[in-house]
Amino acid sequence: MPEIRKDPVFGRWVIIASERGLRPNEFSTASDDGNGVYKCPFCPGNEHLTPPTVYSLPAAGGHSWRLRVVRNKYPALVPGGNDGGQSDGIYSRMDGIGTHEVLIENARHGLRLEEMELEAVADVARTFILRTREIKKDPGVKYVMIFKNHGMNAGASLAHPHSQIIALPMIPIRVAEEVAGAEHYLKEKGSCVFCDILKEETGFKNRVVGENGNFLAVEPYASRFSFETWLLPKKHLSHFEDMQEALVWDLASILKNALCKLHATLPDLSYNLIVHTMPVHTPQAAHYHWHIEIMPKLCQVAGFEWGTGFYINTVSPEEAAAMLNEGKKYQL
Amino acid sequence: MPEIRKDPVFGRWVIIASERGLRPNEFSTASDDGNGVYKCPFCPGNEHLTPPTVYSLPAAGGHSWRLRVVRNKYPALVPGGNDGGQSDGIYSRMDGIGTHEVLIENARHGLRLEEMELEAVADVARTFILRTREIKKDPGVKYVMIFKNHGMNAGASLAHPHSQIIALPMIPIRVAEEVAGAEHYLKEKGSCVFCDILKEETGFKNRVVGENGNFLAVEPYASRFSFETWLLPKKHLSHFEDMQEALVWDLASILKNALCKLHATLPDLSYNLIVHTMPVHTPQAAHYHWHIEIMPKLCQVAGFEWGTGFYINTVSPEEAAAMLNEGKKYQL
Repeated sequence: MPEIRKDPVFGRWVIIASERGLRPNEFSTASDDGNGVYKCPFCPGNEHLTPPTVYSLPAAGGHSWRLRVVRNKYPALVPGGNDGGQSDGIYSRMDGIGTHEVLIENARHGLRLEEMELEAVADVARTFILRTREIKKDPGVKYVMIFKNHGMNAGASLAHPHSQIIALPMIPIRVAEEVAGAEHYLKEKGSCVFCDILKEETGFKNRVVGENGNFLAVEPYASRFSFETWLLPKKHLSHFEDMQEALVWDLASILKNALCKLHATLPDLSYNLIVHTMPVHTPQAAHYHWHIEIMPKLCQVAGFEWGTGFYINTVSPEEAAAMLNEGKKYQL
Repeated sequence: MPEIRKDPVFGRWVIIASERGLRPNEFSTASDDGNGVYKCPFCPGNEHLTPPTVYSLPAAGGHSWRLRVVRNKYPALVPGGNDGGQSDGIYSRMDGIGTHEVLIENARHGLRLEEMELEAVADVARTFILRTREIKKDPGVKYVMIFKNHGMNAGASLAHPHSQIIALPMIPIRVAEEVAGAEHYLKEKGSCVFCDILKEETGFKNRVVGENGNFLAVEPYASRFSFETWLLPKKHLSHFEDMQEALVWDLASILKNALCKLHATLPDLSYNLIVHTMPVHTPQAAHYHWHIEIMPKLCQVAGFEWGTGFYINTVSPEEAAAMLNEGKKYQL
């Protein structure tokens, strides 16, 4: 059973998951079938290599499925266990309770998310919403974290396109800080900070990299990473899972478009994509506004960033937006 | 001039330093002298490739110096500029004021810090202290951040052993959080959290990886990274730069010993080393206790960690301590 331990200084939580250390890493050592042939556990025909299907969408053509959600074989958190905190000397710990699902985005091994048909990208977005609605039925779940790691530099261990959904038994510290920061802004300025960013960026234009009826894509003013890109819904809504079906197509379209632009400018792109949303089981909030953050990983985060929480970014968001909009290649 | 921008939600600062993007990266593209020969800017004889020397220690033998401090040629922050904040639409920014120094730890290109003689490691520790005392004479400096990136996975761009010293015009958010966390602990429990950790770990023993008269090396209870190692001075002191000369040898010794153990267990070790200390120009504090954190980078930090502030660690600190103490190799 994974264990959650609390740092006594920061109050930061750490998951100690020894079993997860056993997972194969396609990029470093290929796992094989004993005959030296690597079998991707996410490809059709290899379903026996993953835990059973939690959710799937049937394929129109020859394959049995076009999208599939399974429990992670090497989970960071697992259901069951004791949900109370225990002391351990001067420290505190608890069992690593939660769920860890993998969303296999399509049947084709080499097809990147942005290369998929718009309908298939919409399937992925819709599945994020449906799984969150399902997972939050468990009253012990406090937060549902949806994210995607693409490429070796972003921490992906398998190449087959996939995303992850982790249900957590507490509200993560970064989420609490972001929600508190937005609440503070509302108290000071009387408006939602993300609604204000939408207005500012629409007026300024030089950091905008995409727009449709319901979404705006921008390089944020204080980008931590070169080519960091945020996708903001134009209409205020605090909880991602409350998004209406009518918006799913525009979300798929702005996401596909942003990733296409990023790949054109950064051919070897590795990135982390994170859905930022309010904790589940909380009421609609005037101060928080769900959105997606895409963080390309061009270089390693180093000691200065770890020690300070400051970030050093060598490409301004205005330069980044110009390059993305012109389709210009970036030379590292 | 680099620019410091503030994120309107988190209050997080980002340094936008376009010139820094021009720095050479020995690991990806070798810079050469026009004849295709790579010249390390930190090797003796190539002093003209770096800005002038700020501080140095003479060599006993053939070389002109055994340790050298220079301004960073591609600084994240520079002296001068306007120290006031300015608004930029709904956002705020300021000039990127500060200093960014590089400490070249020895004259030999391939000699790692832990392979150096104990006296040379003590020279490095002593220089950290002396430079901090010198840099903090500028009343505009609020924090002095001392760190070292070793290896490509830890964000190092040059192989010649070096550390960095950055003077900042504000207290970084992570430092403020750590100091506030320690202050909260003192109020609740009546003691310094780091003094309590020293007591707990000395009693428990299974996370200790080194000890001498003045220092303890431990794998912390809530290690974020596998084989994370902290070096804690046994005597309470809040400011690193107030450390007495009598402790320098023991610091050098515990540091050399910890790095030797880490390299034996992790042959391809990349790591970030960070000196955690109170902001300069603040009085001695009962709640804060300076220390060093070494964070090996075995794998990439991924979306889950970025989104939550949670960390997933697949090697418990107890297992890590046992492997380090037995000199057992870790298989990734």
